[in-house]
Amino acid sequence: MKTYRFLIAAAVLLAPLFSQAQPQAGEGQRLTPQVMARLFPAGVVSPDYHADGSVTFRCQAPAARSVSLDCQMLPAPVAMVRDDKGVWSVTVKPGKPDIYPYAFVVDGTRIADPNNMFIFPNEGFKNSLVDVRGPEPSVQDIQDVPHGKVSYRFYHSGTCGIERQMTVYTPAGYDPAGSEKLPVLYLIHGMTDTYETWFKVGHVNNILDNLIAAGLARRMIVVMPYANPYPEMMRQGLADRYDAMDTERVVREILDDVRPFIESHYKVRTSARDRAVAGFSLGGRQALACGLGHPEAFQWVCAMAPALFGEEYRTNFTNGTYAPVEKVRNSYRLLWIGTGTSDFLITPSRNLDAFLTENGIRHTFYTPDGGHTWMNCRDYITRVAQLIFK
Amino acid sequence: MKTYRFLIAAAVLLAPLFSQAQPQAGEGQRLTPQVMARLFPAGVVSPDYHADGSVTFRCQAPAARSVSLDCQMLPAPVAMVRDDKGVWSVTVKPGKPDIYPYAFVVDGTRIADPNNMFIFPNEGFKNSLVDVRGPEPSVQDIQDVPHGKVSYRFYHSGTCGIERQMTVYTPAGYDPAGSEKLPVLYLIHGMTDTYETWFKVGHVNNILDNLIAAGLARRMIVVMPYANPYPEMMRQGLADRYDAMDTERVVREILDDVRPFIESHYKVRTSARDRAVAGFSLGGRQALACGLGHPEAFQWVCAMAPALFGEEYRTNFTNGTYAPVEKVRNSYRLLWIGTGTSDFLITPSRNLDAFLTENGIRHTFYTPDGGHTWMNCRDYITRVAQLIFK
Repeated sequence: MKTYRFLIAAAVLLAPLFSQAQPQAGEGQRLTPQVMARLFPAGVVSPDYHADGSVTFRCQAPAARSVSLDCQMLPAPVAMVRDDKGVWSVTVKPGKPDIYPYAFVVDGTRIADPNNMFIFPNEGFKNSLVDVRGPEPSVQDIQDVPHGKVSYRFYHSGTCGIERQMTVYTPAGYDPAGSEKLPVLYLIHGMTDTYETWFKVGHVNNILDNLIAAGLARRMIVVMPYANPYPEMMRQGLADRYDAMDTERVVREILDDVRPFIESHYKVRTSARDRAVAGFSLGGRQALACGLGHPEAFQWVCAMAPALFGEEYRTNFTNGTYAPVEKVRNSYRLLWIGTGTSDFLITPSRNLDAFLTENGIRHTFYTPDGGHTWMNCRDYITRVAQLIFK
Repeated sequence: MKTYRFLIAAAVLLAPLFSQAQPQAGEGQRLTPQVMARLFPAGVVSPDYHADGSVTFRCQAPAARSVSLDCQMLPAPVAMVRDDKGVWSVTVKPGKPDIYPYAFVVDGTRIADPNNMFIFPNEGFKNSLVDVRGPEPSVQDIQDVPHGKVSYRFYHSGTCGIERQMTVYTPAGYDPAGSEKLPVLYLIHGMTDTYETWFKVGHVNNILDNLIAAGLARRMIVVMPYANPYPEMMRQGLADRYDAMDTERVVREILDDVRPFIESHYKVRTSARDRAVAGFSLGGRQALACGLGHPEAFQWVCAMAPALFGEEYRTNFTNGTYAPVEKVRNSYRLLWIGTGTSDFLITPSRNLDAFLTENGIRHTFYTPDGGHTWMNCRDYITRVAQLIFK
């Protein structure tokens, strides 16, 4: 069996992770096939990628009555089939290569794939990611081009009163001591996503690396803040409720904490001409408030499937959330809205598009196929990255 | 209900993530209590931290017959109790504040906590992390001190023929254009762990930030490579089996790919005096091979619960894996071994300790309480970080 050496090592080393009780001293060296099987079941590989673009998913669940695969490459969940060792599997092939979130549903309980290290960073659910590559690498795949980096930064937030995190993409060859000053895109995640989601799911670093290498995007820094301070604020007694709708705090955090941190720690340009803000879903709502509310700070504003509630698409121009129509009409180099035609948030986007058109506000409204997904998000950021700072 | 605004937004925005079928256009705005309950169940908060140091864990699993909590703060799994909405819960209190891995066991299937964004990065299982803080912050907690950063770096590996990743900690104020050159610690994860585990579970960045701020550790760069290239090599047809025991390749990767990348991209010292290597478990085996096999490259070698098989603790000194005893006796500023007394790998460490003593090789053997855990790992790195480069 080709996985033999792996299983031996796995059995020795993984024992304490799978079993709560610590083995007695030396016990780990008394291996039996029974112990190995218990500790590292059957060398399960999942997802298992095949040359024809299909993928086999496997889930070890001997006691389960039913297991299905719920993957965004499929129109509906599909049943998995149990083998005589209790490993459930199914082989599927997506309509096109892409990165798709998925989970197993084990007797009604959704679980991430235990054998897949690629997890969808989120506060409220645990999906895994299957990365189906095509014959040619796509813009979101890592390729052998100069690579930028993604840094996890830690800072004290005056707005929230706690230590916070963000991630920051800098392009290959970024040199804080050089003469080059870069423009900055502030890029906001969706609801219950985190500061890791645009990196781990959005592959924004690969997309920028590849676009920059091909001469299709300007060199830029991408800042990915964490738009939800509430869990940590509640834990520290600084808030008594989780307020996902507190866009005003997110805007202040970005303008008063994140922006000064970036502008004092990175070699960046600091005019509105050189700042963009973009976001997905709830982050699209926040990006609009940030950008349209602060023409003095941002001249590029991009909303991807923005969550606008009720009449916000027009009342925000008069209630102080956004600048007045006259100001918006003359302040921006790009106002970009992108929402899939089957996105459940297409209606507010259409309302906003119509309002902007009626009021003579120049903008781009991009409506591809697809829904409220990160497959669409990667398309949005690929397009936006080629427009801004030009 | 204090979570009301959150639930409304959650129901609108999370629909496509929980349901495979895309809602029809506008459907997300026709919210009913039934739709909301399906989309975002009951505002489950888990883990829920209490002021007395106890923690409530909750798991939504209405159809389950039994749910238990398997947490490394507890000597054995504990049953969780179902409420009338199908949310299972239990409240426990650890013997001491620390960060503990845990999973829920739902009808025999282990799952990460769906409502906890803090996941244990690993190839082969999905644990969550509960972070119980004490009245005073500990060395592993983020504190209001100058923060370094952790960067995800991408590079082409000649040893493996693929694009690879590592994480790199640089301390606060690190300035690639300044005159300061830093020493470098190469820090290797355990088996099935990844290049993220020392960061996300080990909190090595917080530990270094706090030790450096207190004047207890030298400023240094910490490089965390990914010791397992096999999944990606197999996918690309460059390997036909998963060889966890291929320590020789890990050593070559670190010396021939990772080290040159670091020394050409960072302002670092490049003498053996200014390089350390350390690792946990299988990474301890690799750190010993790297360090004791290459006295010309490393003068500081630290093995944390190293996985040494059979007679390797002595045969490695004569088969070319390590330098000969005479060379080891005179080449190192620190040879440090740390293994918990109830670690299932204590016996190989004791054998190595005895062999080193018999052969007059100066070393430190640290044997605290505890097992093969990341609670112990954080203790090891806290101690090692105060010893090296001094």
